[in-house]
Amino acid sequence: MSYTTIKNIKIIDIPKHTDERGNLGVIEKELIPFAIKRVYYLYDVPSDAYRGGHAHKEQLELLVALSGSFNVILDDGEVKHSITLKKPNKGLLIPTGIWRELEDFSSGSVCLVLASGVFDESDYIRDYKDFELFKRT
Amino acid sequence: MSYTTIKNIKIIDIPKHTDERGNLGVIEKELIPFAIKRVYYLYDVPSDAYRGGHAHKEQLELLVALSGSFNVILDDGEVKHSITLKKPNKGLLIPTGIWRELEDFSSGSVCLVLASGVFDESDYIRDYKDFELFKRT
Repeated sequence: MSYTTIKNIKIIDIPKHTDERGNLGVIEKELIPFAIKRVYYLYDVPSDAYRGGHAHKEQLELLVALSGSFNVILDDGEVKHSITLKKPNKGLLIPTGIWRELEDFSSGSVCLVLASGVFDESDYIRDYKDFELFKRT
Repeated sequence: MSYTTIKNIKIIDIPKHTDERGNLGVIEKELIPFAIKRVYYLYDVPSDAYRGGHAHKEQLELLVALSGSFNVILDDGEVKHSITLKKPNKGLLIPTGIWRELEDFSSGSVCLVLASGVFDESDYIRDYKDFELFKRT
């Protein structure tokens, strides 16, 4: 059961420290509503690849385009919304119970993901019909 | 006081999941000897920029070249060692009490850093003479 909707998705401004040596982005405690238990990243993604296609029952995730850009299609079971991530200082906070798909990766793009839990297959909903059921019950 | 030396530095193999949709690297619990309290990243770094130039009293850090490459010069107060990071599946674990400098960033490179603590200025040693004193006492 998850009452989250597209409206619960947030774009978080990641503090950016700029000087002549480049930019530094920092993510720590109060910026995101969870402790970071897992860090993963997508790289060398072919431009026609499609990733994601799942929802989480409990875990929250923050997605950041550290290099290049890609689209995230978010779906709460009723409404779909597409967001292009292309800036290292913008994080997409995806609450539990939101189906996500990633596509249109630009050449050399890198998607950083911070997750609220370690990998746990039982937290994944990988079948869209199961997701619809999860949202309704 | 810190007895760490260059020998305590480790290159960690980050699990890489490869398929036709690209590569996925994952860092969680047992891979690194600390809980992730802070995630930061360097980007848009000019190729002639020099970064780092500090040591930590308590914090441990893992550095990963998520895109492009850069050199890390490590110094334990007696011995210096230079490592080129250029692969997203190799993490450089820097223990406490090691002076580090980053340079030779390739165009578009991204340096991801996972740290064992939140930002705390008092944990930084930013003056090399203070670092030498720290290592000796």
